[in-house]
Amino acid sequence: MKRTFALMGTLLALTLAIPAQAQFAKPEDAIKYRKASYSVMAAHFGRLGAMANGRAPYDAKLAAENAELVAVMSKLPWAAYGEGTDKGDTRAKPEIWKESAKFKEASDKMQAEIVKLNVAAKAGNLDALKAAFGPAAASCKACHDNFRKD
Amino acid sequence: MKRTFALMGTLLALTLAIPAQAQFAKPEDAIKYRKASYSVMAAHFGRLGAMANGRAPYDAKLAAENAELVAVMSKLPWAAYGEGTDKGDTRAKPEIWKESAKFKEASDKMQAEIVKLNVAAKAGNLDALKAAFGPAAASCKACHDNFRKD
Repeated sequence: MKRTFALMGTLLALTLAIPAQAQFAKPEDAIKYRKASYSVMAAHFGRLGAMANGRAPYDAKLAAENAELVAVMSKLPWAAYGEGTDKGDTRAKPEIWKESAKFKEASDKMQAEIVKLNVAAKAGNLDALKAAFGPAAASCKACHDNFRKD
Repeated sequence: MKRTFALMGTLLALTLAIPAQAQFAKPEDAIKYRKASYSVMAAHFGRLGAMANGRAPYDAKLAAENAELVAVMSKLPWAAYGEGTDKGDTRAKPEIWKESAKFKEASDKMQAEIVKLNVAAKAGNLDALKAAFGPAAASCKACHDNFRKD
């Protein structure tokens, strides 16, 4: 089982194109990092959602800034699902490693929607932001539903 | 005392140029956000340190990428020291609010050193990275020493 996980970790690392150089000294560092990157992403994504859903006034400059930060953050967590990061202080489901191709697909989909959201936010009009926000939020939710414990 | 803190929060918010729009629903959200942004920053800063100190091979492209991320992250935490964020799950010292001008000075200094580090990392040579890393690390430490509990 341990070897299976090790192999899966390696496969996932290859799939996600993690550089050969070890990026985290300990698995718990990787877990802390990926959670932190999701937290920062969620805060800025939430501000776009508040504008898209009319809970906050639309501000084109703020929307562009927040979307840019979301786009930057959306690239970060994936390198932090290496070997040994399946347990500890994490809600990650085993499916991340057991079905790594599906997980990669979901993470690619999210990043693609965030690219679109970023383009939309920089278009400078609320309708574009609204149109792109829903699919982006759905791509977050899809991954949470399948790969994150409640 | 509560009013004093509220006033200080307002002053700090003005000093740090926080947009008028409330960015966090609850103080604990702000605390979580600023800790998360420091965590992501520290991970990437650590990779630059590993190269600068010879613990990892120098890779110009990786150095530039990590420095860019550090620069992006270095701008984020300051908006998250608003009213009510002085207590809770945080190591922030009361001096952040009591001596807000000094805190702002320290945070400005850090950001300025990170800008230099980013330029140095993009110069594409290890000596430039080494020269800029020390002062940048010192600017992190200065703030930790004065404004963060052990």
